[in-house]
Amino acid sequence: MTDVIAIMSMSLDGYVAGPDGDVMGVFAWYFGSGDVAVEAGGSDPMTFTMSEPSAQHFHELTSGLGALITGRRTFETAQGWGGNHAWGPAFVLAHEVPEGWPRPESTVHFVTDGIESAVRQAQAAAGRKSVAVHGADTIQQCLDAGLLDYLQVDVAAILLGGGVRLFDHLTDAPAILGNPTVVEGVGVTHLRYPVRTDQP
Amino acid sequence: MTDVIAIMSMSLDGYVAGPDGDVMGVFAWYFGSGDVAVEAGGSDPMTFTMSEPSAQHFHELTSGLGALITGRRTFETAQGWGGNHAWGPAFVLAHEVPEGWPRPESTVHFVTDGIESAVRQAQAAAGRKSVAVHGADTIQQCLDAGLLDYLQVDVAAILLGGGVRLFDHLTDAPAILGNPTVVEGVGVTHLRYPVRTDQP
Repeated sequence: MTDVIAIMSMSLDGYVAGPDGDVMGVFAWYFGSGDVAVEAGGSDPMTFTMSEPSAQHFHELTSGLGALITGRRTFETAQGWGGNHAWGPAFVLAHEVPEGWPRPESTVHFVTDGIESAVRQAQAAAGRKSVAVHGADTIQQCLDAGLLDYLQVDVAAILLGGGVRLFDHLTDAPAILGNPTVVEGVGVTHLRYPVRTDQP
Repeated sequence: MTDVIAIMSMSLDGYVAGPDGDVMGVFAWYFGSGDVAVEAGGSDPMTFTMSEPSAQHFHELTSGLGALITGRRTFETAQGWGGNHAWGPAFVLAHEVPEGWPRPESTVHFVTDGIESAVRQAQAAAGRKSVAVHGADTIQQCLDAGLLDYLQVDVAAILLGGGVRLFDHLTDAPAILGNPTVVEGVGVTHLRYPVRTDQP
């Protein structure tokens, strides 16, 4: 079965976005950590610059992805990624399908029947590649449902002091994680934890 | 001037203790991560076992310490370390000096006039060695007062889901930290951040 990997940048004090919902306070640390240019594809391509170890980490991580699960807020914030996300078909958790969707030219799909369904659909779409899970709410839903294989947290060297926490309402905790693999960037530390769903 | 180093173990979701105040949920990951025996001195000596990289990290860190600043709760929890803390003279922040203190045979001192005074006294006691700051409240007071040189966080591979957060009421944030030095343990990742008080 294809792996399900939560991917998120977090400040050292646990925030994925500042008090005003601005995610760039955290992301900027990762994406502004050096001068190696990295292209992110999709309909709305962007070029980021980052340090060499982060660029290599980003390339290895994203080249293994075949689909994405995220929430409605991320979809709105990213303005629907221009219709196609760089990581493959996107499955957006929502209470209802927004007006004007689905669109024939888009690989963005709305899932209204819960996280298990989203994971099932994303795994089918990803083929042999992995499924990325993005967004604090969506990641916590996946953790609580025991659906995550890996937790990839990019810890930015910043204390935000407030905002949206990555881990704020876990119901299935304490949860023991495996030993992380570590990639040292510049101003960011990439930690990848196996999620041991077979342990107490 | 002697360095002031915050030293704390934290779960990946940011807790230094579980919902019942039990710190061992986090510490145990560090101290139970291998079979290398490490002696902690003081009046109430203990032996911990940990992995080889954690043991080396622990030795290098603690051999450079000459004094400790912490809070009343840590003092109570540790039952006063038997009168002498392993890291040197201990300066305990308190509203008032508890009954029966100070004691002539003890290097535990109570500081009732605030964190700046505690840091000043601890630096004088530490000589050329560093001052450790321990405990979530005390560390945050030091951060907010701009008195920290390093933030040593041992991130345990566990999600606690609730409890006492390390960073919960910072007033002087956002704060940009320097690039961490990283020591990879087993089930714990030791991150040491320079605190750049000279940056915005």
